[in-house]
Amino acid sequence: MTNGRRAIGLDIGGTKVAGAIVGEDGTVHAELRRNTPDTSDSDTMNDLLRGMVADLRAGPAGDGVSAIGVGAAGTVEWPVGRIRWAPNNAYRDWDLRGELERSTGLPAVVDNDGNVAGLAEARLGGTRHDDMILLTVGTGIGAGIVLGGKIYRGPHGLGAEVGHMNVNPDGPQCGCGNFGCLESMASGTALTRMGRSAAAHDPDGMIATLAADGGGEVAGRHVTMAAMAGDRTAQSLFLRLGRALGIGIASVNAIFEFEAVVIGGGLVDAGELLLDPARRAAREFAYSPTSRPIPPVLPATFKGDAGKIGAGLLALEET
Amino acid sequence: MTNGRRAIGLDIGGTKVAGAIVGEDGTVHAELRRNTPDTSDSDTMNDLLRGMVADLRAGPAGDGVSAIGVGAAGTVEWPVGRIRWAPNNAYRDWDLRGELERSTGLPAVVDNDGNVAGLAEARLGGTRHDDMILLTVGTGIGAGIVLGGKIYRGPHGLGAEVGHMNVNPDGPQCGCGNFGCLESMASGTALTRMGRSAAAHDPDGMIATLAADGGGEVAGRHVTMAAMAGDRTAQSLFLRLGRALGIGIASVNAIFEFEAVVIGGGLVDAGELLLDPARRAAREFAYSPTSRPIPPVLPATFKGDAGKIGAGLLALEET
Repeated sequence: MTNGRRAIGLDIGGTKVAGAIVGEDGTVHAELRRNTPDTSDSDTMNDLLRGMVADLRAGPAGDGVSAIGVGAAGTVEWPVGRIRWAPNNAYRDWDLRGELERSTGLPAVVDNDGNVAGLAEARLGGTRHDDMILLTVGTGIGAGIVLGGKIYRGPHGLGAEVGHMNVNPDGPQCGCGNFGCLESMASGTALTRMGRSAAAHDPDGMIATLAADGGGEVAGRHVTMAAMAGDRTAQSLFLRLGRALGIGIASVNAIFEFEAVVIGGGLVDAGELLLDPARRAAREFAYSPTSRPIPPVLPATFKGDAGKIGAGLLALEET
Repeated sequence: MTNGRRAIGLDIGGTKVAGAIVGEDGTVHAELRRNTPDTSDSDTMNDLLRGMVADLRAGPAGDGVSAIGVGAAGTVEWPVGRIRWAPNNAYRDWDLRGELERSTGLPAVVDNDGNVAGLAEARLGGTRHDDMILLTVGTGIGAGIVLGGKIYRGPHGLGAEVGHMNVNPDGPQCGCGNFGCLESMASGTALTRMGRSAAAHDPDGMIATLAADGGGEVAGRHVTMAAMAGDRTAQSLFLRLGRALGIGIASVNAIFEFEAVVIGGGLVDAGELLLDPARRAAREFAYSPTSRPIPPVLPATFKGDAGKIGAGLLALEET
C-alpha cells in the first residue's frame, strides 16, 4: 500500500507543533497539529512529541514509517540534534534527537525549522533553485539558506539566523532580548504588537472590533482580517511590516547572490498585503541594481507546511 | 635570485591604487602606490595600471613575474574579471582582465578587493581560520567571506557585499546611492562626513584646527589624529563609527558561524579607537550569546596591505 519510504516530520514553532507522515516525493499522507504548551520546557515537549509520533504511527498511514525528522525554532546543534536555546520557547539544552530515538526506537534528525523548510522549498518548490533563501514569517522569522544546492548551517549548525540580523538598533525588543532584529519588525509578533497599539488608539476601529467579536486580545490575524476587508489602518501596518521585511531582504541580497527569495510561514497567507511592500523595499534598497540582478520575491510553495514536509524529507535523506 | 614564483598584486580602491610584487609566501618584494585619479574612468585607469605594471617589472624585483592579480572595489564578475560598477569610482563595465592581459602579455585574474584581502588574511593571517570574514574599513567597507576555507563570492562573483547591508533605513546616503548602508555609517567616508560636521559646529576645536593647519578640508585622518591626541569630540565620533561597525558585525554573526571577524583597511590604524566600540556593539547585539559563541574581533595581520598581497596570491593560485 505504501509507495517508497515514509518518515514523520515534526515542525516545532512558537505557537504550534505540526506533524505529518511524509513520502519521498513530499506527499503528506497524514497530519496532526497541537498547540505549543505555554510551559514549553523540554519535559512537557518530550511528552507532547512522543504522543504525536504514537498517534501518527497508529493511524492508517503509519505503516512503514522508518524515521523521524524535526525542525525546531531556535539554535540547534547539527548533526547532534541538541537544541541549545530558542527565543520563543522555554526549552533549553534539550537533547531532542536522543530523547526521540530512545522513546520511539526510530532514527531521528533534528535541525533548525528554517533549514528544513528551506530544504522542502529547494527540493520540491515550483522551480529548482540552487542558491536561494526561504524566510518563514510566523511568530518569529526563520530562515533556510541554500548555497550551491546545500543547506548552509554553519560548521556547527548555528548559522542562518537571518531573522536576528539587526535592521534598526533603536527598534522594538525582540523575543531574543535584542532590539531591532528583523524578527522584531517583520514577524507575526510584530504584527500583533502593532495591531494592539492601533486598537488601543482606536477602540472603535476594525482591528479592535474584530478582536472584541472574537472575545479575546488583538492578535496578528485580526490585523490580517481587517486589512483584507479594506481597513486602512490595518493595511498601513502591513506596509510597515512588509517594508521592514524588504529591507532585510535587500541586506541578505547584498551578501548572497540568490536566484530567488521565497517567503513562507503563516503570514504569507496575507499574500500581496505582505509581499508587495516587501518587493518594493527590496528594490528600493537593492545594492547596485544596475550591475547586480534583483532576485524575485516569491510566495513559498508549501506555505505553513514547509517545516513538517522538509523535516520528513531530511529524515529520509539523512537516515 | 628569486625564490619560487612571483606575481604582481594590484589593489584598486576609491582613493589609491597599491601595487606590489608578491611571493608565494606573501613576501612583498617591491611596492608602488598611486592616487586614484579624480576621473577614474576605465581608459584613465588602464593607463595608470599599465604604467604601474611596467614600473614594477622594470625594477630590481621584477624578474620572474609570471602573472597579475587585481582586487578592485565594486561588483566584479568572477572568473571573467569584468568590473560592472563601483560605488566610489567612475569605471563601468570595464573588461579589466582582458585589458591587462592584452597590454602586458601576462595572465591576469580580477576579483573584488574585499575577496582578495580576505584570501590574504585566511591564508597568511596570524591564525588559520576556515570560516571568517574580513571587513576592510577604508573609503568604503569591503568584505571577504571565507566559508569552509574557500572565498564565498556567489555563483557569479557578485556576493559578499556586506558593506551594503542596511543598518538604518533612515541613515545617511551611501556612495552607492542607498541610505543607511553599513558603509554609509562606519567607513572612512562616514568619518570624514562626521568630522566636517563637528568642525563646522566647533571651528576652534581640534578637528578643525588640525585640518586648517594642514591647509585643507577636514578629512577622516584629522579625526583620527584628534582622537589619538585625546580630543573628546573626535573620540565620540569613533564611538559612533565603531558602534555602527559592531552592529553590522552582529548581523553577519547571526547569519554565519565565523571563527573570527578580522578588521582591515586604513581605519584599523586607529586601533582600539575603532575596535573597542565595535567589539562592545557586536556583543550587545549578538544573537543568543548564551548558546552561540561570539567570534573575536581582531585587527587584520596585513592591515592596508592585504589587498595587494591577496591579489598577488590569487594570481599565483589561479594561473
